[in-house]
Amino acid sequence: MEFSSFVARTNTCGELRSSHLGQEVTLCGWIQYRSESAASVRRILCEAPVESVVRVCGTVISRPPGQENPKMPTGEIEIKVKTAELLNACKKLPFEIKDFVKKTEALRLQYRYLDLRSFQMQYNLRLRSKMVMKMREYLCNLHGFVDIETPTLFKRTPGSTCPATIPVKLITACKGAGLTRDTDREHSSVWRRHTPAPPLSLAQLSSQLLSQEYRCQKPVKNVVLGFDTRKTNAILIKKRNRGAKEFLVPSREPGKFYSLPQSPQQFKQLLMVGGLDRYFQVARCYRDEGSRPDRQPEFTQIDIEMSFVDQTGIQRLVEGLLQYSWPDDKDPLMIPFPSMTFAEALATYGTDKPDTRFGMKIVDISDVFRNTGLRFLRDALAKPQGTVKAIRVHEGAKYLRKDDIEYIRKAAAHHFSQEVLPIFLNAKKNWSSPFAKFIVEEERLELTRLMEIQEEDMVLLTAGEHEKACSLLGKLRLECADLLELRGMVLRDPAVFSFLWVVDFPLFLAKEEHPTELESAHHPFTAPHSSDMHLLYTEPEKVRGQHYDLVLNGNEIGGGSVRIHDAQLQRYILETLLKEDVKLLSHLLQALDHGAPPHGGIALGLDRLVCLVTGAPSIRDVIAFPKSYRGHDLMSNAPDCVSAEELKPYHIHVLWPTDSE
Amino acid sequence: MEFSSFVARTNTCGELRSSHLGQEVTLCGWIQYRSESAASVRRILCEAPVESVVRVCGTVISRPPGQENPKMPTGEIEIKVKTAELLNACKKLPFEIKDFVKKTEALRLQYRYLDLRSFQMQYNLRLRSKMVMKMREYLCNLHGFVDIETPTLFKRTPGSTCPATIPVKLITACKGAGLTRDTDREHSSVWRRHTPAPPLSLAQLSSQLLSQEYRCQKPVKNVVLGFDTRKTNAILIKKRNRGAKEFLVPSREPGKFYSLPQSPQQFKQLLMVGGLDRYFQVARCYRDEGSRPDRQPEFTQIDIEMSFVDQTGIQRLVEGLLQYSWPDDKDPLMIPFPSMTFAEALATYGTDKPDTRFGMKIVDISDVFRNTGLRFLRDALAKPQGTVKAIRVHEGAKYLRKDDIEYIRKAAAHHFSQEVLPIFLNAKKNWSSPFAKFIVEEERLELTRLMEIQEEDMVLLTAGEHEKACSLLGKLRLECADLLELRGMVLRDPAVFSFLWVVDFPLFLAKEEHPTELESAHHPFTAPHSSDMHLLYTEPEKVRGQHYDLVLNGNEIGGGSVRIHDAQLQRYILETLLKEDVKLLSHLLQALDHGAPPHGGIALGLDRLVCLVTGAPSIRDVIAFPKSYRGHDLMSNAPDCVSAEELKPYHIHVLWPTDSE
Repeated sequence: MEFSSFVARTNTCGELRSSHLGQEVTLCGWIQYRSESAASVRRILCEAPVESVVRVCGTVISRPPGQENPKMPTGEIEIKVKTAELLNACKKLPFEIKDFVKKTEALRLQYRYLDLRSFQMQYNLRLRSKMVMKMREYLCNLHGFVDIETPTLFKRTPGSTCPATIPVKLITACKGAGLTRDTDREHSSVWRRHTPAPPLSLAQLSSQLLSQEYRCQKPVKNVVLGFDTRKTNAILIKKRNRGAKEFLVPSREPGKFYSLPQSPQQFKQLLMVGGLDRYFQVARCYRDEGSRPDRQPEFTQIDIEMSFVDQTGIQRLVEGLLQYSWPDDKDPLMIPFPSMTFAEALATYGTDKPDTRFGMKIVDISDVFRNTGLRFLRDALAKPQGTVKAIRVHEGAKYLRKDDIEYIRKAAAHHFSQEVLPIFLNAKKNWSSPFAKFIVEEERLELTRLMEIQEEDMVLLTAGEHEKACSLLGKLRLECADLLELRGMVLRDPAVFSFLWVVDFPLFLAKEEHPTELESAHHPFTAPHSSDMHLLYTEPEKVRGQHYDLVLNGNEIGGGSVRIHDAQLQRYILETLLKEDVKLLSHLLQALDHGAPPHGGIALGLDRLVCLVTGAPSIRDVIAFPKSYRGHDLMSNAPDCVSAEELKPYHIHVLWPTDSE
Repeated sequence: MEFSSFVARTNTCGELRSSHLGQEVTLCGWIQYRSESAASVRRILCEAPVESVVRVCGTVISRPPGQENPKMPTGEIEIKVKTAELLNACKKLPFEIKDFVKKTEALRLQYRYLDLRSFQMQYNLRLRSKMVMKMREYLCNLHGFVDIETPTLFKRTPGSTCPATIPVKLITACKGAGLTRDTDREHSSVWRRHTPAPPLSLAQLSSQLLSQEYRCQKPVKNVVLGFDTRKTNAILIKKRNRGAKEFLVPSREPGKFYSLPQSPQQFKQLLMVGGLDRYFQVARCYRDEGSRPDRQPEFTQIDIEMSFVDQTGIQRLVEGLLQYSWPDDKDPLMIPFPSMTFAEALATYGTDKPDTRFGMKIVDISDVFRNTGLRFLRDALAKPQGTVKAIRVHEGAKYLRKDDIEYIRKAAAHHFSQEVLPIFLNAKKNWSSPFAKFIVEEERLELTRLMEIQEEDMVLLTAGEHEKACSLLGKLRLECADLLELRGMVLRDPAVFSFLWVVDFPLFLAKEEHPTELESAHHPFTAPHSSDMHLLYTEPEKVRGQHYDLVLNGNEIGGGSVRIHDAQLQRYILETLLKEDVKLLSHLLQALDHGAPPHGGIALGLDRLVCLVTGAPSIRDVIAFPKSYRGHDLMSNAPDCVSAEELKPYHIHVLWPTDSE
């Protein structure tokens, strides 16, 4: 690899070693520290401000004995400078470009061109480029895939997903009250205040936020403000569902709009009909979600589609792809990845994207308590689908504090209206729990056996309908992991990458607002499980789809499916089961009728994947110019105002909100 | 390369050779022709419609003697089928998918998924993918470039270019009158009617188009309808300048819009300031030009930027890039490419993008006619900057017909208000021209010597101001080339690829509407020629820029420059010389002040490049899902109507045009 071809230097500053000793070199770069130099070059190298750009010619020499730095790859050598040239001086910096100097994210985004010089951003962006290049080699050069660009000016498509969000105004209010986002889950997020002596009580804070909330022109629904029993103030905010929209692009024809697609889904399927057979694209996608943490209005996915393939084929392809492109500075990936059904994931981890780096699995202990004296357990079990479930928090009794437990208990009660029973087991095998006296010896023994309870473990127990109980324990499992690590336990090794396939999802879900109607669990093009085909016409809600998710350390980083290639089946699902307007998809239905091969594919979220691989705190740290939380470019101030004159060719004008709105 | 990994076949249909004889294979594909088969598989292979999808298992055997097809790579073998399975039946096709079956482009675009199965589309898209992959290898793996994605949701930038277009309504009118677009040049386009017996005279046709034109709500300016002296009716339409716009994307904040950038220009420069050093991206760009032939609202460029580089560095990089990625089935490229100044290109070829595949260069013959008796030449030379110029059309007298000459003469007269004098030289060295008698022997001999005139050549001669005369002859040179090839001469070998650098462009141009004001010839970030720096403050119109264009066979396929890295110089050019609002670019100016390295770059138009390499008639043939001439997706019907309800979150509504508009 030649890093200095075509340019005015002989080497990069970082590549010189003692093997270069005695060589005449020309280097270009930024002044990081100023130190004493020979008189002839002193004016430039010592007087130019830090971060000025210079070119230096000289000879590679050894560092004087005792001045070597074995921690740096270049630590054995230095340059005896003959000539130095100031290429561009740097004005006063808004912040120091040193990794140890902390700065707010807003400042970093405003001066992104300076922030990009940091070690971490250079590492992240260069690693991202290398990983994508390896993926391309694997797909193009090893497996005959064709890289095809699909349009981003398209039309609206039916059935977009609806992720939950927190209203922007509420976020602003939280920030105004000195809170920072702490943990973030799919349907809720915890905000904490870390100031040692909070000037406001939680009650005051809550009421302030609420009033802030009500000061919004329209009341924001579904916001729950709650509980705080820990030393730091914490507020749980439930997210509000709001439709993810496709961005619109006005055309010059009155009333006609392009839209920026959320994925190349239709195009990749049409390419299969077109005989392109093995397609991939590093595809830019767009999603207007208002504001959602760690999402960007534009994002990138590794988009793949193949003809004549089944689920296993795609899975093996993706495993090979990740193994091949995995960075050299990490442990190599072991393949194939483990696989788990959706039902198993829910029952064992309470989620469809389990973090399998640690155990703490959910155990069904209903049978232990069939004859319990504990009323709430007995009541729960008496109901249809009633269960008792538990997780064992290994060494929980040792690590977790009393207020941690209280926090968990209240989180469960407030957020999920569900009781959680923490049980401690101390060294003398005596139960420590407010409910301990109601648990008989037989139950205790059976529970200990079933859950392999050891000394100093903690057990969290809940009762209720299967899905709800699992979901609750799944969330508390992650809360416990956070708390254990906060208290010093090492639970999730940053060097460990746990990939997992989750399969056999239901094809349809009942709509939240209209439970008698069905919607696609993923998208309407997913093929039903071949063994469930007969159910499609009788009990469609029981049909499993040939959909597969790829999960890494508890994050969904990809999803795909075998698609429907039969026009009649596709029409039945769209029209009869989903009540969609098929006119919007007539071109796709027509394509399926003209020799569509069996096909399937997957899309991997590149930003999220690189974020996890680099261990970056946010996907904004693996994107060169990300948007802020509110979708703004803080450097250039986009989006920006546009004059009525400029809107004219597009036949639109702005509807300014009135005071009453 | 494994083309059949992960899927339900052992081989692709096209890869089997006699070396596979005796192998058991499983193939998947589309039925192209039906022929007799064994009874057991007859029902599937013979009764399923053409273009149905089948899977076939069998053994590779030799074709019976006499049935081999040496023209096909698979022509020695066939498959003895054991089992056949119909995977999907094909309904009645809208057109036959055979390369010899001609179909309109509209039909091809409407059923793009079928058109993609054609040999040519498969070849074009696969070659495109391979070329881009080789480019990535060259940049990433050989030269340490970093592939960085930049945002496409950005803000409006000052100073966008203004290409000339034909109003859509006029195009519709031409099509309605049975005309098709024939030749297309930068500022005009010729439409012809090819029906053998035109039902309308040209006069009738013109008046019909004109009335059509005036039926538009607003009169379209600058439309010239003209001449027809050839056997086919032809109409010359002068294009209208209309601003290329950036597409707007409404945000959820009232009155605020993102815009889709025309290139990542600002971002690539900011990456250099950010120390990313060697950036490239296969970048999606957007340009709303209304309608312009062979342009697409979204297009792709190979975008490159380097720090510490000069013009030569970028040129050598790009030459290496193209040589490395050049398709194996073409002759290898010879590098370095020749280079020519803008002044030389204009003087010799009458254009800034010369087609150097053939000669026919412009020669200044002013000196020959200093004492001429021809009044119009004498008058022209008497004026300041007056010149006489000519091109020699080799064997023009042999190949061109009388009406061809008449066409050229009238084209020049009508379109450029300029007289062109065609001169013929016949076998007896006698001049054949209406003006021959006014050319004295001495002039004749000198002209013959200067232009190396041979028997049966034709000379086209014009007089006037240097730039205008060159520009006219440059256009006539291309018209002559078209006509010569129409008459059977081979002038431009499709296997020849003539690359050319054009350099030393002026940095500024006088504005067309306000000739005392300056605008950037390319963009305001181009660095001035170092030897012209002093002129910047005295005669800025004489300053040359460090800009370079890459031309292939007369098409501009790339352009770039060394950029300004000095904030003060950039501010002077933007504010004082160009009178731009620097507030819109404050972030860039600020970045230059904080240690911006010297840098430069280039962008190559990928669609155009691949189009020329594949010899495709239009860039639409190297794009999987292109938009039509009017910017429509004919398959899915984008852009489409959007309800007022859907526009609400974006605070816009549609201004429907009224009748009076």
